[in-house]
Amino acid sequence: MSILSKQASHVGAALDLQPVLDAVDAVLGAQPRPVELHEPRFGERERQFVLDCIDTNWVSSAGQYVTRFEQMVAEATGARHAVAIVNGTAALHAALLLEGVQPNDEVLLPAITFVATANAVSHAGAIPHFVDSTWDSLGLDPMALDEHLAAIAVHRNGGWINKETGRRLRAVVPVHIFGHPVDMAALGTVAAKYDLVVVEDATESLGSILNGQSCGTFGHSAVLSFNGNKIVTTGGGGMILTSDDDHARRARHVTSTAKKSHAWAFDHDEVAYNYRLPNINAALGCAQMERLPAMVAAKRELAERYLQAFSQFPGARVYREPKGAQSNYWLNTLVLDRECAGERDRLLSALHGHGVKARPLWTPMHMLPMYRDCPRSPLDVAEDMYRRCINLPSSPFLAAGGKENANKI
Amino acid sequence: MSILSKQASHVGAALDLQPVLDAVDAVLGAQPRPVELHEPRFGERERQFVLDCIDTNWVSSAGQYVTRFEQMVAEATGARHAVAIVNGTAALHAALLLEGVQPNDEVLLPAITFVATANAVSHAGAIPHFVDSTWDSLGLDPMALDEHLAAIAVHRNGGWINKETGRRLRAVVPVHIFGHPVDMAALGTVAAKYDLVVVEDATESLGSILNGQSCGTFGHSAVLSFNGNKIVTTGGGGMILTSDDDHARRARHVTSTAKKSHAWAFDHDEVAYNYRLPNINAALGCAQMERLPAMVAAKRELAERYLQAFSQFPGARVYREPKGAQSNYWLNTLVLDRECAGERDRLLSALHGHGVKARPLWTPMHMLPMYRDCPRSPLDVAEDMYRRCINLPSSPFLAAGGKENANKI
Repeated sequence: MSILSKQASHVGAALDLQPVLDAVDAVLGAQPRPVELHEPRFGERERQFVLDCIDTNWVSSAGQYVTRFEQMVAEATGARHAVAIVNGTAALHAALLLEGVQPNDEVLLPAITFVATANAVSHAGAIPHFVDSTWDSLGLDPMALDEHLAAIAVHRNGGWINKETGRRLRAVVPVHIFGHPVDMAALGTVAAKYDLVVVEDATESLGSILNGQSCGTFGHSAVLSFNGNKIVTTGGGGMILTSDDDHARRARHVTSTAKKSHAWAFDHDEVAYNYRLPNINAALGCAQMERLPAMVAAKRELAERYLQAFSQFPGARVYREPKGAQSNYWLNTLVLDRECAGERDRLLSALHGHGVKARPLWTPMHMLPMYRDCPRSPLDVAEDMYRRCINLPSSPFLAAGGKENANKI
Repeated sequence: MSILSKQASHVGAALDLQPVLDAVDAVLGAQPRPVELHEPRFGERERQFVLDCIDTNWVSSAGQYVTRFEQMVAEATGARHAVAIVNGTAALHAALLLEGVQPNDEVLLPAITFVATANAVSHAGAIPHFVDSTWDSLGLDPMALDEHLAAIAVHRNGGWINKETGRRLRAVVPVHIFGHPVDMAALGTVAAKYDLVVVEDATESLGSILNGQSCGTFGHSAVLSFNGNKIVTTGGGGMILTSDDDHARRARHVTSTAKKSHAWAFDHDEVAYNYRLPNINAALGCAQMERLPAMVAAKRELAERYLQAFSQFPGARVYREPKGAQSNYWLNTLVLDRECAGERDRLLSALHGHGVKARPLWTPMHMLPMYRDCPRSPLDVAEDMYRRCINLPSSPFLAAGGKENANKI
């Protein structure tokens, strides 16, 4: 709420664009244009590990780098189990199935997220149910969730039902937007009250910490993404994190065609998926994970530079991590004052013209045609965010002001 | 039928195992044990292309190797369009959706196939309907399909319905088992008679040819696999082939989150998937595709050596490609005489003990618990095949009798 109250004092004419371009230039320094939103950099270790896969003729799943990558991610996050998956969407789909989400259940998630969150819910046969966000974290608002459930949830036949649709309310998927942790204690309290399973969408928040605990370890299970635009990339890839031994075993089973272990027989015991990560992708991930602390530090340094460049700035400011959090600042976010919201697209156009590949928030889920008729809470904050937020280039190597050092980050 | 009539003359005692091991040894030569069923070999081009991805920091989807890989596969098969997909299961799932398969439709497929074929049908919300196989190709029997449909299909409300279940019969998925082409002309005739869409499962048959035409170009659409055990591998990967421009455009759209093209906005217009192949995997595929003709030649040479080793053999013979076909012989198949069927597991045990990673056919789909209650035709031939067939190690580099030459094959 602090941002909103400060902005109320700025009674806006049109946003002056040139100072924004100048402030961004001051951060990006000598970086050649165009500057992409988020790009990886690879070094000698990536070369070495990938060539090792090739030279040992082992590129497919069940390779040694898959196991090593899982161990590195488990160690870095403190998760008991990490199961490598072909991508983040598949990981969330599988995690929802493993947590007991059934066809026609409703799954609560923020309207402000990448479409994959809602798609994975749909892939499980469930119905996305959109909840408002909070400026406190940019993610799902536990208080709005609580108020909404008080209005629509009834306890019936041993479960919580959406009285407006008659469907079972089964799970909630908090998303740590741009790396900023959702208030998981508050969310957990609401989820417990309504018997909701918490599947944490930590696809953007590898390396983010809340009150000393890593994102991806708060929910009943969690998922990560290693898409090409993430802090650690495997080309395409994902991970399921869980503290439950049986859940981890089941995750491996249903993501590798549910094949029963046998020297030669091909027996499978349920309808299942081909969702495991190939070894060559995991090899990339192993090399990247060695630099995770350096990349988080670089991204936090870059965020600090954006924050400085836009401090005391008329009409906009850069979003700062929530209290108690150390965010990985996956994507830096420029928040326009409310009075300047109408300038968003003009600013995006100017930034692109200037070789800066900025972008708005994802279009909120309830504004997309296929999710228009899904159940939802009031979404005033989500719509306000959508009008006012712009992501700025956030690759870790930009921290050095254009002086890249792939070996360091 | 020729195999069966020959075998009728052999009235069997137990199969003598040592001569089988000796015949396999004669083919495998000095190859170090254990000999896996199918393994890739990589060379300088794989190293070069993969390092190029790393050095240009481009490992994710929409990279230049993805486009190049698609072009190479299209050229090699004669398909008009090739769309790279994260794996074969995902490719078949997407292809079925694109061909209009709806939840609760029935899709006909052989009971003898890898479980992924049936799983992809299930992922589309449809019901697998199993059909018998023929010794002519090891694949789906067009004549059995025709007889079965004559018994169960009725034309009602503009479509063909399974009168026993009341469900719509929508598509048929012929699988070119172990690279041996199904009789696509006969199958096409039956499919046309019952308005069935033909989605060709060519996951095992890249490089196989039937009457001068490549597998993967007969159906309304087709899918390939580049799993680690396939003739060309990308670690994990798949491809949709189609001659239809609109279908290809739709395939790209729904496998990449249905995002509408825009410089910055994130708008999506349908529930969709994250199914595209990462660039680093496609890079491997490009290198492998350069050697496809050499690999097919090597695999055909290996098949010829197995055929020779088991010609005039008491109790078993090696399966020869169908008439009119040039098979890629993905997996060589030892067919036990009917009288020796009971010896299958004893032989598998002996082969494994001898360092030869042979395996039986996949357990037929109707014998798996999750597909036990699916509709089906009589499956006598499928069950007979399952009892009598064993796959033998078939990696292309085995053609040289253990003298590997990665640069050649």
